[in-house]
Order: sequence, then structure tokens, then C-alpha cells
Amino acid sequence: MTVVPVPAAQITAWDHEADVVIAGFGIAGAAAAVEAARAGADVLVLERTGSWGGAASMAGGFIYLGGGTALQKACGFDDSVDNMAAFLTAAMGPGADEERIADYCAGSVAHFDWLVGCGVPFKAEFFGEPGWEPMADQGLMYSGGENAYPFNTIAAPAPRGHVPQMADKKQGEASAGYMLMKPLVETATAAGARALYDVRAQRLVVGSDGRVVGVIARQYGTEISVRARRGVVLATGSFAYNDAMVARYAPRIAGRPAASIEQHDGRAIRMAQALGADLAHMDATEVAIFIDPQQLVRGILVNERGQRFVTEDTYPGRVGQLTLYHQNNTAYLIIDGDAQDDAMASLSPHLMMRPPTWVAETVADLEAEIGLPAGSLQATVAAYNDGAARGEDPLLHKKAQWLKPIGSPVGAIDLRESTGGFTLGGLATTLDAEVLHVSGEPIPGLFAAGRCTAGLAAWGYASGVSLGDGSFYGRRAGHSAARA
Amino acid sequence: MTVVPVPAAQITAWDHEADVVIAGFGIAGAAAAVEAARAGADVLVLERTGSWGGAASMAGGFIYLGGGTALQKACGFDDSVDNMAAFLTAAMGPGADEERIADYCAGSVAHFDWLVGCGVPFKAEFFGEPGWEPMADQGLMYSGGENAYPFNTIAAPAPRGHVPQMADKKQGEASAGYMLMKPLVETATAAGARALYDVRAQRLVVGSDGRVVGVIARQYGTEISVRARRGVVLATGSFAYNDAMVARYAPRIAGRPAASIEQHDGRAIRMAQALGADLAHMDATEVAIFIDPQQLVRGILVNERGQRFVTEDTYPGRVGQLTLYHQNNTAYLIIDGDAQDDAMASLSPHLMMRPPTWVAETVADLEAEIGLPAGSLQATVAAYNDGAARGEDPLLHKKAQWLKPIGSPVGAIDLRESTGGFTLGGLATTLDAEVLHVSGEPIPGLFAAGRCTAGLAAWGYASGVSLGDGSFYGRRAGHSAARA
Repeated sequence: MTVVPVPAAQITAWDHEADVVIAGFGIAGAAAAVEAARAGADVLVLERTGSWGGAASMAGGFIYLGGGTALQKACGFDDSVDNMAAFLTAAMGPGADEERIADYCAGSVAHFDWLVGCGVPFKAEFFGEPGWEPMADQGLMYSGGENAYPFNTIAAPAPRGHVPQMADKKQGEASAGYMLMKPLVETATAAGARALYDVRAQRLVVGSDGRVVGVIARQYGTEISVRARRGVVLATGSFAYNDAMVARYAPRIAGRPAASIEQHDGRAIRMAQALGADLAHMDATEVAIFIDPQQLVRGILVNERGQRFVTEDTYPGRVGQLTLYHQNNTAYLIIDGDAQDDAMASLSPHLMMRPPTWVAETVADLEAEIGLPAGSLQATVAAYNDGAARGEDPLLHKKAQWLKPIGSPVGAIDLRESTGGFTLGGLATTLDAEVLHVSGEPIPGLFAAGRCTAGLAAWGYASGVSLGDGSFYGRRAGHSAARA
Repeated sequence: MTVVPVPAAQITAWDHEADVVIAGFGIAGAAAAVEAARAGADVLVLERTGSWGGAASMAGGFIYLGGGTALQKACGFDDSVDNMAAFLTAAMGPGADEERIADYCAGSVAHFDWLVGCGVPFKAEFFGEPGWEPMADQGLMYSGGENAYPFNTIAAPAPRGHVPQMADKKQGEASAGYMLMKPLVETATAAGARALYDVRAQRLVVGSDGRVVGVIARQYGTEISVRARRGVVLATGSFAYNDAMVARYAPRIAGRPAASIEQHDGRAIRMAQALGADLAHMDATEVAIFIDPQQLVRGILVNERGQRFVTEDTYPGRVGQLTLYHQNNTAYLIIDGDAQDDAMASLSPHLMMRPPTWVAETVADLEAEIGLPAGSLQATVAAYNDGAARGEDPLLHKKAQWLKPIGSPVGAIDLRESTGGFTLGGLATTLDAEVLHVSGEPIPGLFAAGRCTAGLAAWGYASGVSLGDGSFYGRRAGHSAARA
């Protein structure tokens, strides 16, 4: 696979031309198309599949926004820019880019209004149950553990997972991500943006002065050239499905892609790297753990030494991340019969509800069945039950509503190798979405946004950060390219 | 800082010429110089400081070798290539490059003989005490936790830390790393390799066909051009002292460089990236924890939840790594008065011996003084003492010789923020030390070895791996460049 740039002098005639050429019609590409077209540019989007949407249209649709959005206010939650930044700095790290976080938080309220202005619908209703997503069409949810330990000691909790309203979730007619993408694409189209489908960007075309002036793409097996008079925007998503890149940059997630799409092959990252583009946070990944949060909050999660390591009522993605990276991808959920019954009786969609792998009358027996070190689980349960009886969790500060001594019979759900996710690292960009060369300067004519770039996350994650920074910096990319 | 490649057509006259030009005269550069010169090439080494040596000559001098080296045999240890590979695959991962490990292990015995042939001295004596380095001039030591849990269940333990013999360690006349470097540099010089000092490689020179044909360097403030008729070898060390690169690629080690030298600014990585070179394992780091291993083995190490998480008799670098990455860089060593006295009385050099931060009569009091969750440390010590009384450690399998119930008075050493280290990631290379382009093909004329490349380590580490893969693939780089 060559991604070596093509000298512009080699192009004798362009097959297509536009002011701004955008590779990828997912969330970042759509946001870029809207802003570039509104800025008066002639916009052409190249999409490798047969339709717009990308990973976004398959997704749960969370957009991580705060600082006092209209939706937060309508649902009765206070938030501030500083509060949001304090949370993100802790939760996206260690090593998160504080300048980017400050920029994103400062623009977050306006970005929500922009989405609404593009026609993205949000229902002013908060969903407060444990879960990966709202159960119905509620518009706001905690999506990063903001109200759980330790983040609730770092910043005042506020829910920031903004979810577009689905027409009719129960009948599966649309995902929330579709309800985000559809109005953005319609807005871009109404503003004059054009799109070509089944066109896959392959290589960048570069002038003798080093400026990116176009793209070589494949359409139905034929190579075509597309001239970009002002700039190229790369917005083709993550490298989660590029095995070689995952092996070199994010081996922990190897063999476990999830919540991503196969088109996420990292090609745009490679195309820019071939020009000397810098990267950032390539090892960062989103991680899901395949268990129903309604079960998670009602049990205690232990590692291979029988020790608790994360409060079970936090963002389940954080549970997955700590399990995969810090606990050898090994965890067991200890849950008694009553708690399992309660979880089963909850309103959860039951998609990830799991039966116990082992059941025993005593914790000692369960410990032996799982094969945990002798005495380890017994000590952990004894300490937990002791605190729970007093309504306290001195070790991990699970909220009192979920504290209940573990009784008999007691089961364990095997959560070894039960994680998956997608990559978060990518091209290093300025806050104006210019792609940075390793020399430290932007590469003229080249812009990028979405999951082919490093965004807010350096290690940790919260649901909605990818659609959030993808749409936010997608807009910046469109605007910057139109001005270039 | 521009690292943009210079077109060869712009060079009107070269200031220096050689067949093989090597940037950096540390371990990888010296090994490359030996092999390139022996292969008949005219070799010129460019070193930015006033002398050869690099980080290697400051280092403890461990070279990670095995599979049945002459030194292992002379010290009475059995080892095999498969055994060594099984250990490295587990210890250098997750995600270690198994093909590279297999290659390295298969060549390890011959590589030891090559070092000896170059005049590197090794004393056939095993050092078996806990410590970061041998106390005197012993030549062999466990340096990766091979004989500790869990690695002793994965591969038959064999010590593989090969340490050059120091002339007179006690009087500080030479480090073991110096005793490695001196004979290699003498061998290279005898074979005809030349060196220029105070010359800093800045940019690569590239022909119109994409081949690397030289280097632009700075000498005493002046730019000079150096032609490489056959190839350029990059061997300028890690990026541990490049703050911007550390922030983007390995933020966990930010602000904590250790066991490295300030010249490790990542420049060679940047120069190659500007040509489209691929990277690997940029997030991997070596991690030291600043405590005497003689103390470590005699105490129990707990995290911020009062839980043990690593057997205290393993490689202390592994303790550091788990502490920094998995335990929020927070650990406390619980050690009673007798154990502290024993450690103080040991033959250790006492460079990292630390007094207790807190001392108490009871574990309950100590737990409160440290500020650990109520009951957490008490449960941990009770379980440990219970096992230790029976000579067992069911939780972490510390060796019986170090198991002793913790008595009173009991102290704790605060090991928060007590880690440091250097970066292990870098350029992606073939087993022949060719630098890989992101397209997957080698960049013609460009070779690299040492810590500006990704070597054996993807996450974990063992002392001696950097001097090991640096010298091993340094030789390959010299050989490949001479043939190019």
C-alpha cells in the first residue's frame, strides 16, 4: 500500500475540483462540510462507502458537551466551563492536552447551539439509571463517571452526554447517531456541499512548495485525481481496523475492535505521516466492558487477586479501561442472587445482561471455584459487607444507594477477555485543525479532524468525546480550509 | 526546528564523505561502526558531544543475553533460546514483537561471543542478592524478574543480565557501561572507523529517487554536509529529553526522565519521520522506583487502597512500572523495625536506602497516619502475616526466604511520585535495521538501531534490553548499511 505523496506536476488533468476537498462523510467530515460551505467555499466530500454516516451513524450518538448548555439547564443541572475542564483534565488523562480541553470547554455551549441550529433534535429529559445509553429518547445522561468517585471529588458532577432524540428507538428505526448525522448532512447539502460516494482517498497531491493541493482517490477500481484549491480535510476515522498499526501503536486493543467500523483503516493517518505529519496519543483507546451496568452497580468487581479496584457505579467504559490496562484484562463480578434478580428485573435493554459463570453457597466456595488466592475474596467481601451494612464504602466510595451486603447464594460473572474498543490517537493538529509537521509547523493546505486525529483523550475517555471533538474540530477544519 | 529533508541537488560540495555515516557514538553507533568497518566500508561516526560513550557509558552496563551463553554456563545456569523467548514475550509485552524476540534470542549466544571477541570483559561470577546492580564486579545477575512470580511460572528462570567487569568499581574509576563502550570503540577504530566529535546531525539529504545519501549536521555553529555513499545509520538515542515528544507519545513519563542523558532529544526520530518513517511502541518506557531493593524484598508494597499488587522480590523496574502505570504512581512500602534494620545492615550501596516516612506501634495507627482507607492495610497485613507464618504467599508468591510476619514497630516509606525512566519507542525497523516507511517498505539508504528505534520492549522491560538490542541491531545496521 503506497501512501507516498504525488507531486502536483504529475497531474496533467484533474478529474474533479473544489475549493475544499473533504475525505470522509462521518461526523467530522459533515461538520467540516457545513462550515466550509457556509464560509462560501465550493465543497466536495469524498466518501468511500455508498452513503454518508461513518461510525457516527452507527453509534449511540453521545456528544460530550457542557459548561451550561441549554439542555443541561433545561434538565436542571448547573455546570461551568471550569468545572467541565477540571473533569476532562482528570478523566482524559494522564497527559491530556489542557490547552485543547480549555478550548473545547470554552466553545461547548455555542457548539450545542450550533448543532441545534443545524436541526439536531434533543429532548430535555435526563436519564439517571445505570446503563450504556438512555433507555428511551432522553437527551442527557452521565457518560464519564462525573458523579462517581474519584471524579466527584475533583469537579462538581454534571451530566454532559448529550444524545440526539430518536424518532422511535424501540422499533429500531434509527440510532441516535443517525439522528445526529442526518441533519448535519442535510445542512451541508443545503449550504451547497457536494459529495461523491464509493470514492476512497489514497494519496495526497503536493505542490513543489510543499502545499497539499489535492487527493488521489480510487473509484470503482479506477484512480481519479481531485484538486483542492484551498485545502484538504482528512476525516476518515480511526485506525482500529488496521492490524499493523494497532500492533505498533496500541497493542492492548489488538484483536478487540468494537464500537467502530471496518472502514477505520488508518489510511488518512498514513497519508499524512508520509508527508512528515506528527502524531499524538496513539496508544489511547476507548474500552467497553461487555456487561450490563445494571448488574455492575449491584455487584463488586474484583481482579485476579480478589481485590476491588474501581467503584462499580462509575462510567462502565472506565471500568473497561482499568480492567484491560491495569488488571491484565481480568475481572470477576461478584453478585448475589437477589442482586442478580434485581438487575434482571430492571428496565435495561438486557443486551449485555449475563448469567453467573459460577454460583456457590459461600464466598469461600466461590473463591475456590474461580481459582482466586485463598482468603482473598473472603477478605474483600467481608470488608465490603462490613461497610455496606453501615452505608459506607471506605475503599472506593460507591454511592450509598448501591451498597448492600452480599448474601447467599453468591455468583461470579467471568469478565476475563471481555473488553473491546477503538483507537483514539492520530494526527497532531493545531486548535485550528491544521495538521502539524514534525518540525512543529502546520503542513500548508492540510487539515484534519475526528478520530484520525488525537483529540481530547490521552488515556481516559468518556462517551461522547469522539462525536464531540470530531464535530467541534470538524467545524474548525472546514472553516480553516475555506480560508486557506 | 526544521527537520525537513534536504534535496541532494542542493548540495554543491560535500564537506565529508564516507561509505557509511553513523549519527551517534553510543552503544548502537559503536556496534554499527565495528560491523560496517569489518565489512570493508569506510565509516564515519558523527557524535554531538566531545567524546564517544552516549547513555551507555553512564549506565550500569547490563546486556540482556541468554539462551545458554558461555557466561551463563560458567556460572552454572541452564538456559535455552525458547526459554528466553518465552520470558521476553511475557515480560516485554503486552504486544511485544515476537518475530524480533525470536530473532534476538536465536542470535544471543553468538552476540555474547562477539562482545567478548571485541574485548568486553565479563567475570564468571553470579550475583544473587536483591539490588539494582551487582555490588562488586560480578558478571551475571537476574535483571528482569525471571525467578519471581509470575515469570517463574512462564519460563524456567535463568539470569540474563550480563555485566562487563569493572576495573575497580569501589573507587568509581569506571562504570560497567564504560567497560562495554571502551573496547567496542577501540575495536571500531582499529577496524578503520573514523569519528568526528561536536557534530550534531540535523537533517537527512535525499536523492531525487528517495534514497538517503547524506546528512546535514552542525559543527561549532556551522552547517556541514556529509555524504554517505552507501547508507546512513541513525543511533542517537531516545526522546526522553524531548518534552514535546514525551507529551504527545509517552506522557506518563513526563517530568521524570532518569537513567538517560540530555542529548536524548529524539532528533533522529524526527528526521526520519519527516521522510515518512513509521514508529512503534512510542508509549513504552523503562521505569525505575527510587528505593533500595534490599528494603523492597523485606517489606510489603501497597497501593492507595492498601492492597498489594506486585511481589516485592521481583525486578524493581517492574515494581516501578506497575506503580507508575497501574497504581496512579502511588505506593507505600510497609516495613517493620527488624526488616528495616536488616536492610540497613545489608551490603547494598545504600544509594537508595530510605528511612520510614511514618512509624507506628500498630498497623491500625500506621494505616490512619498514611491516610489509607479504614481497615484496608490491616486486612492486607493480617493476610500477609497469616501466610508468612506458614511460609506461603498465596496472593503474590514472594519467595519463602523473604516471608516474615510484619511486627511492631511498623513503618511505611512514602513512594508516591518516586519513579522515573526513559522512553523505549522509536522508529519502526526491519530485523536488518532498515527504517520502515509508513507504506511498509524500507526507506532506501536509511538504517537505525538503539533507543531511537523500537526494540524488544512494547510495554514491559528488563535491565539490559536497551544495551542488548542496541548492540545487536546496531551490528545489523552497520552490516546492512555497508552492503547497501
